Amino acid sequence: MSVRIGVIGVGMIGQDHIRRITQVLTGGSVTAVNDVDAARAGQVAAGLPGAVTHPTAQELIADGNVDAVLVASWGPAHEEQVLAAIAAGKPVFCEKPLAPSRDACQRIMDAELAAGRRLVQVGFMRRYDAGYRAMKAALDDGGLGAPLLMHCAHRNPSVPDYGFTTDMIISDSSVHEIDIVRWLFGEEIVAASVLTPRRSGHAPEGLQDPLILVLEMSGGALVDDELFVSARYGYDVRGEVVCETGTVALADVSEVTVRAQNRHSGRVPVDWRDRFIRAYDAELQEWLNAVAAGTSAGPTSWDGFAAAVVTEAALEALRTGQRTAVSMPERPDFYVK
Amino acid sequence: MSVRIGVIGVGMIGQDHIRRITQVLTGGSVTAVNDVDAARAGQVAAGLPGAVTHPTAQELIADGNVDAVLVASWGPAHEEQVLAAIAAGKPVFCEKPLAPSRDACQRIMDAELAAGRRLVQVGFMRRYDAGYRAMKAALDDGGLGAPLLMHCAHRNPSVPDYGFTTDMIISDSSVHEIDIVRWLFGEEIVAASVLTPRRSGHAPEGLQDPLILVLEMSGGALVDDELFVSARYGYDVRGEVVCETGTVALADVSEVTVRAQNRHSGRVPVDWRDRFIRAYDAELQEWLNAVAAGTSAGPTSWDGFAAAVVTEAALEALRTGQRTAVSMPERPDFYVK
Amino acid sequence: MSVRIGVIGVGMIGQDHIRRITQVLTGGSVTAVNDVDAARAGQVAAGLPGAVTHPTAQELIADGNVDAVLVASWGPAHEEQVLAAIAAGKPVFCEKPLAPSRDACQRIMDAELAAGRRLVQVGFMRRYDAGYRAMKAALDDGGLGAPLLMHCAHRNPSVPDYGFTTDMIISDSSVHEIDIVRWLFGEEIVAASVLTPRRSGHAPEGLQDPLILVLEMSGGALVDDELFVSARYGYDVRGEVVCETGTVALADVSEVTVRAQNRHSGRVPVDWRDRFIRAYDAELQEWLNAVAAGTSAGPTSWDGFAAAVVTEAALEALRTGQRTAVSMPERPDFYVK
Amino acid sequence: MSVRIGVIGVGMIGQDHIRRITQVLTGGSVTAVNDVDAARAGQVAAGLPGAVTHPTAQELIADGNVDAVLVASWGPAHEEQVLAAIAAGKPVFCEKPLAPSRDACQRIMDAELAAGRRLVQVGFMRRYDAGYRAMKAALDDGGLGAPLLMHCAHRNPSVPDYGFTTDMIISDSSVHEIDIVRWLFGEEIVAASVLTPRRSGHAPEGLQDPLILVLEMSGGALVDDELFVSARYGYDVRGEVVCETGTVALADVSEVTVRAQNRHSGRVPVDWRDRFIRAYDAELQEWLNAVAAGTSAGPTSWDGFAAAVVTEAALEALRTGQRTAVSMPERPDFYVK
Repeated sequence: MSVRIGVIGVGMIGQDHIRRITQVLTGGSVTAVNDVDAARAGQVAAGLPGAVTHPTAQELIADGNVDAVLVASWGPAHEEQVLAAIAAGKPVFCEKPLAPSRDACQRIMDAELAAGRRLVQVGFMRRYDAGYRAMKAALDDGGLGAPLLMHCAHRNPSVPDYGFTTDMIISDSSVHEIDIVRWLFGEEIVAASVLTPRRSGHAPEGLQDPLILVLEMSGGALVDDELFVSARYGYDVRGEVVCETGTVALADVSEVTVRAQNRHSGRVPVDWRDRFIRAYDAELQEWLNAVAAGTSAGPTSWDGFAAAVVTEAALEALRTGQRTAVSMPERPDFYVK
Repeated sequence: MSVRIGVIGVGMIGQDHIRRITQVLTGGSVTAVNDVDAARAGQVAAGLPGAVTHPTAQELIADGNVDAVLVASWGPAHEEQVLAAIAAGKPVFCEKPLAPSRDACQRIMDAELAAGRRLVQVGFMRRYDAGYRAMKAALDDGGLGAPLLMHCAHRNPSVPDYGFTTDMIISDSSVHEIDIVRWLFGEEIVAASVLTPRRSGHAPEGLQDPLILVLEMSGGALVDDELFVSARYGYDVRGEVVCETGTVALADVSEVTVRAQNRHSGRVPVDWRDRFIRAYDAELQEWLNAVAAGTSAGPTSWDGFAAAVVTEAALEALRTGQRTAVSMPERPDFYVK
Repeated sequence: MSVRIGVIGVGMIGQDHIRRITQVLTGGSVTAVNDVDAARAGQVAAGLPGAVTHPTAQELIADGNVDAVLVASWGPAHEEQVLAAIAAGKPVFCEKPLAPSRDACQRIMDAELAAGRRLVQVGFMRRYDAGYRAMKAALDDGGLGAPLLMHCAHRNPSVPDYGFTTDMIISDSSVHEIDIVRWLFGEEIVAASVLTPRRSGHAPEGLQDPLILVLEMSGGALVDDELFVSARYGYDVRGEVVCETGTVALADVSEVTVRAQNRHSGRVPVDWRDRFIRAYDAELQEWLNAVAAGTSAGPTSWDGFAAAVVTEAALEALRTGQRTAVSMPERPDFYVK
Repeated sequence: MSVRIGVIGVGMIGQDHIRRITQVLTGGSVTAVNDVDAARAGQVAAGLPGAVTHPTAQELIADGNVDAVLVASWGPAHEEQVLAAIAAGKPVFCEKPLAPSRDACQRIMDAELAAGRRLVQVGFMRRYDAGYRAMKAALDDGGLGAPLLMHCAHRNPSVPDYGFTTDMIISDSSVHEIDIVRWLFGEEIVAASVLTPRRSGHAPEGLQDPLILVLEMSGGALVDDELFVSARYGYDVRGEVVCETGTVALADVSEVTVRAQNRHSGRVPVDWRDRFIRAYDAELQEWLNAVAAGTSAGPTSWDGFAAAVVTEAALEALRTGQRTAVSMPERPDFYVK
């Protein structure tokens, strides 16, 4: 039986998920769409045989032909939409961030806990990337000893000249490392600091770019994360975990090596879709499979909550220039696997 | 609309394609299975809701709930099954080889030509591999000049101790390079030679392993292909095309780099499924898409025929130790894209 | 004409330099040796035709058959020996550190300035490494834009179980990065901080290992330097400079790639001699050439002084856990190239 | 004591060896030069304090201030000069080829045998390359099992538009692989074949470029050697030995990795001096050391003879298009290490 999905928010990422469900993955179909831009919703629905549009997210969630909800609207709308899906007892895949604040994420956890089952999967797709998976397997294997350090770099070729703020380097970019290191280390983050190197002359006006975010794990390991959204040369995500007896690093992955003009070279991805397309596929397939099976999988509301809490601490560290402790409650048993 | 597929032959590769259609790809479902081993067919069908078994391939092909046929039986049975599918006007995906002889392939082409439309896709999955695709893109781009040479290596860790013959190194292994170089160069192969290096002490008794197959392309380029089925260390497929102003080579692809015990290292694939799993996925998805659209795609009967013709020449070259010309007819317009 | 060299200190590094001068490089010979261990001096001299031993460093420096002095004694003895060589008007190559304190280095600079010519070369051999040279060439070329960040790692397989202190991770290990980043960036270091990650279970008792040293350059660029002296897996020195439009990193250099047991791998150096042997050769050859030509080259007393000043700040940062400003005077014109 | 060297032939390679002896290596000095171009000899001698010129090679060899002779004249002159050095009882380093024919090499061996000691070292510098040394160490270690195959490529960016013939691709280029595979495998070559791929449009008129030379070793291993002297993109020497349980290949060696414009890349050497400069240094240093010690080292007249014999067979294979057996006599005990 195919899972009938209602998609809220059909901008770039929403449309990409629709393409994925209809043209790449198995076991799902899109039966309803909603967008704040009704015309856009209509255009998207027109390309989906059998799909309807709903004027509001609430009506989409209530639609009897919608088994599960995919939230790809903008961040501030997530809380209300996710809460509505939980209230309706429908599984919901929510793009990151789960919600823009600690408190909003807390309310989602409270609702889910009250509902008595895990209904929410958060879109931290890096956990499905073959590179990070191999890295985690190498760590879990134990052959390298305990992890002590991680060096990360997260480089985007560019951001829009207007509208992208220094805060967004933390909230939009580093949130991926915030989640992935929690997952890799199996530990929470207990403090954050931000270092501000020389600013690139190619950074849009007013943007402090690059940044270095330093995270401290509960077990004592340190993570340094270079965030550079005006890196120009390509989209490059790198990571090396330093353990007691060896290290494991994301490899440069290029399909072919070219020898020309006195260089041997491989390609660097163009953008995040290029780099992580398979991770997005795997992530959403796992969600479809879990929904069909009546189970849950992947990053939980707790992970979304943790990301929000650490992001708030990192933003304060950016503002104050100080090391900022992260105050996390105990993880509810509900969210222990 | 989902394409309803009947699968003939549910051994390892057949079952893998069924898994692919039902759990990975979109747009297809398996509605019928057949196997010379009726018990095995029954077991496989039992795991597929709604699927039936047919005592003969003919009956499966005739089933009104079968839109298209996937042939994964053993090679000698292919001709009859493919001809039956063509006679029934149903698209057919046939695992390599299309048929074990030039004449059998010719009969399939004749039938397809008589039917007036391309119904056959042959399972040369390397054309769907990201590495070969990037290599072909680099060649077609023209920036490296005309291709002059290709160096290939095709290494399997091992073959069964009994039953695998030296001839099979040509017919089973090198057939992949025979197809891929035709596709990469856009040319036919005009001659084949076989060189016999020192035999590995790990080769099963009676097996001349490794071999070097030398292919001459119609445009004059030469291809040397190391075939080594007892290579032990892993499954390793390599290729470098040498052009007038540069070269392009399949890269070593490892998700992570490990540093330990005075080595930095990446992994080599374990077997062909490990190496080419995504190529199989892409190949079969393209077939499903083409069937659904009423079109055809991928390697044709002509490609299956060419592989059979070159394989016969290469086997003669192995037998005689002489360079053996390949006698190919003109390609029918029907098979020109 | 061969430069006649007197060597003070014939422990491991001193003997290695003697081997280099007599068996590898051109234009030098060892005519005199001195060591606090007279027996050892005698043994070494016995293997050097024509070489004499002197009971004191002073007498060696005064020897008319000594044109130039190589100081490879322990650090606390450097100041007196280098000052004596300057007083004698003889060129002196001094292993790092130039002297263990800022004040001692200042006295050496004062003496050299009074002597009116640059007589001292300090043994920062990394400046002669082909990797760092290529990195500097890439930076100076300008094609990558201004440097913004540098990530370094300096990993030793192990240190002695007794006697190696956490302070020595700064003073012995990080001093190499302290010098190399000054040279690469062409800027002074203005502040230092030290982060203390989880301690490796393989670190000798009492040692906080690894450390991360963060350096701020006068132009605003930041350097993070992982120092890990119990890294076990090999001797691994890494560096990547992140610039406005690209990055340049030390490459993994292995002469051959081995494919075996499902890995493709290259070697990691065993120790610092293995990694930097050619840099030591090039360094000392340049010194011999400069002495023969009556000129000076390479790292100066100013560089030795700067390293001492930054090291003191870094040690304070380690002690206090605070960012510590580096207080450097203006560079005297005498030391501007 | 410094070895006093007379250099015969002071063209590009001769001058490079003089630079090496006087500015890089230890233990040698150039005391005499000779060249067919007397003016050039005079100019070179003028830059060498204490060196004289001799009007003939014979007079240089007879000079009492010449301990050993370095022959860097053109090939056809080698025989007479090497024989004269042997007659004078002086060690001689002879650039490859030892002599242009089998018979000439035989006469040199006869003379050396008559003289009763090995006086000749032939300039096959690849044996001193760190890459080939590591490859040989991996083979000799035995961990990879017996070698079965070797794939080589020898690519030059270009050759002069006039004067370079197809025969010279064998005699000048492939002679390096002919020697190195004998050394790597510890076996003689028993047959040669030449394949002629599509000709590059960038090859000078009349030149069949690239070629593939196939060599058969006495133990049955096969070597394929791509020779491409118009490869344009750089000077690239590659090799992979395929053994029973793994392979070992020359690695791409680049000091740094650059990330820019969506590529990560390393450099390919510009020319043979760039690639093999250290091998030339090591080769000549070993010669100087052996001369000073009154011993001999490195490739012998037997190696020069073998190269000439195989080259003749390969040239016949090129001419006839046929596999050509190599007829080697037994190696005299005199040349067994």
